[in-house]
Amino acid sequence: MCSVGNIGKSYHQRLAVGIDFGGTSVKMGLVDESGAIRDRFDFPTAAAGTQLAWLDQVEVGLNRFRRRGRRPVGIGVGVPGFTDFKRGFIYNLTNVPGWTSVHLVRLLRRRFGLPAVVENDVNAMAIGECAHGAGRGYRFAVFATLGTGVGGGVVIDGKLYRGAYSMAGEIGHVCIRMNGRKTPEGRGGLETYVGNRRLAGYAVRALKAGRRSLIRTMVNHKLDAITPKIIARAANRNDPLALETFDFAADCLAAAFASITYLLQPEVIIVGGGVAQSGRILFDPLRRHLRERLHPYFAERIKIIPARLGEQAGMIGCAALVFQARRSG
Amino acid sequence: MCSVGNIGKSYHQRLAVGIDFGGTSVKMGLVDESGAIRDRFDFPTAAAGTQLAWLDQVEVGLNRFRRRGRRPVGIGVGVPGFTDFKRGFIYNLTNVPGWTSVHLVRLLRRRFGLPAVVENDVNAMAIGECAHGAGRGYRFAVFATLGTGVGGGVVIDGKLYRGAYSMAGEIGHVCIRMNGRKTPEGRGGLETYVGNRRLAGYAVRALKAGRRSLIRTMVNHKLDAITPKIIARAANRNDPLALETFDFAADCLAAAFASITYLLQPEVIIVGGGVAQSGRILFDPLRRHLRERLHPYFAERIKIIPARLGEQAGMIGCAALVFQARRSG
Repeated sequence: MCSVGNIGKSYHQRLAVGIDFGGTSVKMGLVDESGAIRDRFDFPTAAAGTQLAWLDQVEVGLNRFRRRGRRPVGIGVGVPGFTDFKRGFIYNLTNVPGWTSVHLVRLLRRRFGLPAVVENDVNAMAIGECAHGAGRGYRFAVFATLGTGVGGGVVIDGKLYRGAYSMAGEIGHVCIRMNGRKTPEGRGGLETYVGNRRLAGYAVRALKAGRRSLIRTMVNHKLDAITPKIIARAANRNDPLALETFDFAADCLAAAFASITYLLQPEVIIVGGGVAQSGRILFDPLRRHLRERLHPYFAERIKIIPARLGEQAGMIGCAALVFQARRSG
Repeated sequence: MCSVGNIGKSYHQRLAVGIDFGGTSVKMGLVDESGAIRDRFDFPTAAAGTQLAWLDQVEVGLNRFRRRGRRPVGIGVGVPGFTDFKRGFIYNLTNVPGWTSVHLVRLLRRRFGLPAVVENDVNAMAIGECAHGAGRGYRFAVFATLGTGVGGGVVIDGKLYRGAYSMAGEIGHVCIRMNGRKTPEGRGGLETYVGNRRLAGYAVRALKAGRRSLIRTMVNHKLDAITPKIIARAANRNDPLALETFDFAADCLAAAFASITYLLQPEVIIVGGGVAQSGRILFDPLRRHLRERLHPYFAERIKIIPARLGEQAGMIGCAALVFQARRSG
């Protein structure tokens, strides 16, 4: 259990608690309206195996935040799964057992006497990046995060777009190959090609087929140890297989981003997550492939930019949702 | 030059002129706020080869509409090309020469002294269907029309969604095969598989490869004469190749609709245009394939329904846009 304190700006601003409820850790931030994290408390998800234990941990964090007389106006939680924002309800969480059909907003309100909101974690990151990160100043933005899977969020007129039933923005399941890999979510979805393991798999298959590459020596011939990070390091040293792997990932992303651009025509697509930290190795071919996949009218008007808030995006976004909800009544 | 008069409802309502500017004909309707067409005037596009000739024809129609003392509150025009709704500007029109970079709203205002709006034709149809057709009562809808190409329109909260630069909703270019056919719009776009000629091409290729089918006798062995309508007739008589052709079209549409549903989660996707008139031959496999391509959370919540306004959708939608613009100031 760790906790990190930040010395924030001292002028008078409202504060909200943003909670990024992840599969391995829960990150709590006390966030002001400028998006600055003024205090922080983290705990491992495994240390809070039941809903009650989770609420107990959140209480520890809240008490810590309140020590200096600070009074947050509400709590926002981002969770890895499907939610109903209006009802404050969790349908179920991916990789976190014990959280199916939970009225989390009600639980939080009863326990802490504070207004609360619950949102899908990537949606929360999207609003975080748009309110205080790479998407500042844009009204129409799409956010994509590249990790185990590919998550997404759509921001229209500065607000999260949730669709008719609160589940919109699932970029990872956008189909790029209609006869592609079958999954419970359909067929040929983006994340079945550019999720971390899939990306590593691309390199592994080539190596198993006898292809020479720096990657092999970098993992001491243990192909299981290959990660996108290692492939990125090899790509930075101009290893052809590594560059090809990123080019493939970039083209898959470009195919999905082309569909997104034709449908939504945002001003900007913000790309975050581990793979996106590879910088130009990903962004150069991504922009090039996207240009090839769009009519000039669309290609000229779309920007692809890296996310800026890193692992804080979720907390900051959850707090922003609290402030937005308080503003609109 | 033909003109058709409709006896509309007689209670007192505001009227607007809706103009559907097509590649072959221009359809003008005098439309009331309930979406009923109270008078109508059509002219062939070829008879109005210049902007001036076009405006002259529109004046003939307007004068006709005004004969009985009727005073429309504005003019809405739907055009087959890219527009800038805010500026009332046409970038260019597909298949209609002489209309590149035209400030149509200014031309109409100066000539007729009426407020005007200009919109992409399929966007106009989308708002027509949502205001007065199959989409009535839905707040989140996507409209697709199947013809030479595949057009689309996105309706959010009962209003057209235009994106950051007025060009959103281009469903026909949603990518379903990332390594598919190359076009100026990208690669593997939906309409390169289910446009009228592409669909006919699917059957023609099979027939040329020696496949037996009713279709062959229905066109007296003139394979050039095959159209989706003829394939639909063969499918209605259970011809296996015809059924397979529609199944393929349905699966292509389902792949694109799955992407749309994951991104936007509308309540309904409304399908219009010639091919959609085939009824169950298209809609049955379309609904089945879409179900297979979606997680149950999404599959349970999306409806696929046929359009209802037929060739009047554009006129009715253009008029609805005039009323919406007048309401919001």
